[in-house]
Amino acid sequence: MKLEIKPIKLPLIKKGDKLPLIIHKHIEKHKKTDILVVSQTIISKAEGRTKNLETIEPTKEAKKIAEKTNKKPEICQLILNESEIIALGENYIITNKNGLICANAQIDQSNAGPNKAILPPKNPEKTAKKIHKKTKTPTIITDSIGRPFRKGAVGTAIAYSGIKPISNYTNKKDLYNQKMKTTTQCVADELASAANIVMGESNQQTPIAIIKGFKHHGKPTNRKINRKPTNMIFTPKTPYKNKNQK
Amino acid sequence: MKLEIKPIKLPLIKKGDKLPLIIHKHIEKHKKTDILVVSQTIISKAEGRTKNLETIEPTKEAKKIAEKTNKKPEICQLILNESEIIALGENYIITNKNGLICANAQIDQSNAGPNKAILPPKNPEKTAKKIHKKTKTPTIITDSIGRPFRKGAVGTAIAYSGIKPISNYTNKKDLYNQKMKTTTQCVADELASAANIVMGESNQQTPIAIIKGFKHHGKPTNRKINRKPTNMIFTPKTPYKNKNQK
Repeated sequence: MKLEIKPIKLPLIKKGDKLPLIIHKHIEKHKKTDILVVSQTIISKAEGRTKNLETIEPTKEAKKIAEKTNKKPEICQLILNESEIIALGENYIITNKNGLICANAQIDQSNAGPNKAILPPKNPEKTAKKIHKKTKTPTIITDSIGRPFRKGAVGTAIAYSGIKPISNYTNKKDLYNQKMKTTTQCVADELASAANIVMGESNQQTPIAIIKGFKHHGKPTNRKINRKPTNMIFTPKTPYKNKNQK
Repeated sequence: MKLEIKPIKLPLIKKGDKLPLIIHKHIEKHKKTDILVVSQTIISKAEGRTKNLETIEPTKEAKKIAEKTNKKPEICQLILNESEIIALGENYIITNKNGLICANAQIDQSNAGPNKAILPPKNPEKTAKKIHKKTKTPTIITDSIGRPFRKGAVGTAIAYSGIKPISNYTNKKDLYNQKMKTTTQCVADELASAANIVMGESNQQTPIAIIKGFKHHGKPTNRKINRKPTNMIFTPKTPYKNKNQK
């Protein structure tokens, strides 16, 4: 298969905007076999998930974390509100938000506005379904997520609708007509990464992309990409204990 | 930017084949601004890095690991020869090979031939440079690598030549004309993932891909993508101790 990945410009999204409708209007000419990739930032903005840092009153714990991590106490408070902190160090806070392990609970100060922060969307799965329904296009919601053993963030599928996120080649035939051993490929994350290249990180104002030419492997599923915590092979070197956490 | 990603068919590669020349002949019509992505499997094959499992005599340690992990003792021996084992469990062996943390030391039985295994290339950085020089095209060597917290493997840049692997947006302006905080994006891995979608995992015989339309951010560098072990936030839950390892 041959892929084509095109960024699409949108107007600046603000609180209350009907995102599925706006996106639908901007991608009307596409084919139904395409895949739509949407940056989570604009979902958060439409949901009004932008916080003015001046309105946040950090607790003692947030202040303590801020000191340890060289971050603003207000940001640490938002992270505490949004996630379970699992590790922290001089310049990082690693969080677990519903199984997604990443830095700073996906809270972003870039593209948020002066002294503001954007929180992650409330329910990206639900939003993915809504956008999919309105646009009739399989949809992936993405964020740029760091990795434990590799530098630099990469586009990652936070939620999706209408696709099979993981292709399984187990028992398919290889080049020598031998059955393949367990080989699973996370196409949802690969598509998210591919789209992230064209969507960019700074001021391009292209928060969605259309991927043309992707051949789906099998029926759409809701299979989760995050590994279950019980199956984790790696744990934080210095785990964080938060007394207030459940 | 708009991307186009095209898989390219090659003849079956065998030991002694001059890979840079073969690839050059198959991509002659491309532009010099394109990016070439090459699956590491064909490099290993050209280097004769295919092992017949019948010729391997597993040591006591390999047999012990095989029992614990439900793998063939011969495969465990190859893993011991090729890497430092850092963790193992019922169905997995996690290895560190020159800083690349992944499963099974990148040793692959798929597409290797009956009762054979393919070892990773000897020096992928050197090969990336050679292919780059011959084809005049920036080159990424890829493998499908699993992730600690996410299911499914994704195309990952094992080596590269002629590109800047990590884009740094720190201090660039965001949508609101504010300076961005530290935002680094691993474009090399994103390009590897994008190419992996079209190259496929089983019997498609398309081990290379051409990416058109990528706009480079800055000058090529040799910057390493792997995090240094001293900076690791996560460590194996049950580390493996190998007495024979340095």
